Amino acid sequence: MSGRRVLRPGDDDVNSYALLTALVVPRPIAWVATVDADGVGNLAPHSFFTVASVRPPVLAFTSIGVKDTLRNIRATGEFTVSLVDEESVDAANATSATFGPEVDEAERAGVVMAPGVVVNPGYVAEAPAALECRLHDTVEFAGSTVVFGEVVAFSIDEDVLDGGHPVFERLRPVARLGRDEWALPPEVIRRARPD
Amino acid sequence: MSGRRVLRPGDDDVNSYALLTALVVPRPIAWVATVDADGVGNLAPHSFFTVASVRPPVLAFTSIGVKDTLRNIRATGEFTVSLVDEESVDAANATSATFGPEVDEAERAGVVMAPGVVVNPGYVAEAPAALECRLHDTVEFAGSTVVFGEVVAFSIDEDVLDGGHPVFERLRPVARLGRDEWALPPEVIRRARPD
Repeated sequence: MSGRRVLRPGDDDVNSYALLTALVVPRPIAWVATVDADGVGNLAPHSFFTVASVRPPVLAFTSIGVKDTLRNIRATGEFTVSLVDEESVDAANATSATFGPEVDEAERAGVVMAPGVVVNPGYVAEAPAALECRLHDTVEFAGSTVVFGEVVAFSIDEDVLDGGHPVFERLRPVARLGRDEWALPPEVIRRARPD
Repeated sequence: MSGRRVLRPGDDDVNSYALLTALVVPRPIAWVATVDADGVGNLAPHSFFTVASVRPPVLAFTSIGVKDTLRNIRATGEFTVSLVDEESVDAANATSATFGPEVDEAERAGVVMAPGVVVNPGYVAEAPAALECRLHDTVEFAGSTVVFGEVVAFSIDEDVLDGGHPVFERLRPVARLGRDEWALPPEVIRRARPD
């Protein structure tokens, strides 16, 4: 042990964004699809993403600033979350570019969308699983907005299911780390829960 | 492609908990330490965990039901988040057991705590990094509570830093998947951001 460094947000030369994204890892990726009021699609990856509630089933993701994804969800109340697997890393990265609201990132990145089953936005056709959501609520911070979406449908490729349960080794999702780093699907170990 | 299965929460035999924990993966782990009003410590892993805001720096984690962690945070307004690395998988799993409020899970699992720098709860002494937090707010769902905590200090082992930045390959954090599955530290790839 060579000791610990203590860094305080707000101090000079402490970059909270760099530290948070390097330390809260690995982060699952929500590839969020929306449509605007005119029907133009938007697709963008968000890695500040987790489960907010199981009963009811609610996902949470954070929008840094106000981008098309957030505007569209506020306008329509709907979005989908597709999983990003190994084959889709470059396409997901390409859809993180900033385009005007008139540009459909999926078309631009060559990503084929499938129609939503319950909601209007589609999901990534090749994604091993997608979750269709209706806006539940948002929470505002100075520079970001947390979006809570209630899951109204799970759409899962039959090939990744075993007895109705998604198998991690078949999903093979990637994750985000800090800076320009992504994580490949990790090795799985099992530990019996105590109690 | 063999087609897709669509599952709707609320339908018979759709287990939303099993699906959410199998699909929102891999999940980073917040090993949350608190103390109660009498000074008894509590330590428990939470994998519904992400970044809620960068400005200000705010973490979010979900408490399913009301357990000691949530009660203590409400009573004291403080908690710490330690990272779980490969060496700590079994200790972290052991602290997920349900004990009475008089039991300090860290002591029970043989986890040595270091004193907090800014807040009263300590953090896991062997953890490669810890984030000290003050309660910002909570959001309630029927069966869970999302806790927002503002980061007031980052405490990072000097050995994992390179030029002041935490290096993923030195942190070697594990993650949670579905059921009894944990993920070992994954292989890192790099992709330049578009724009």
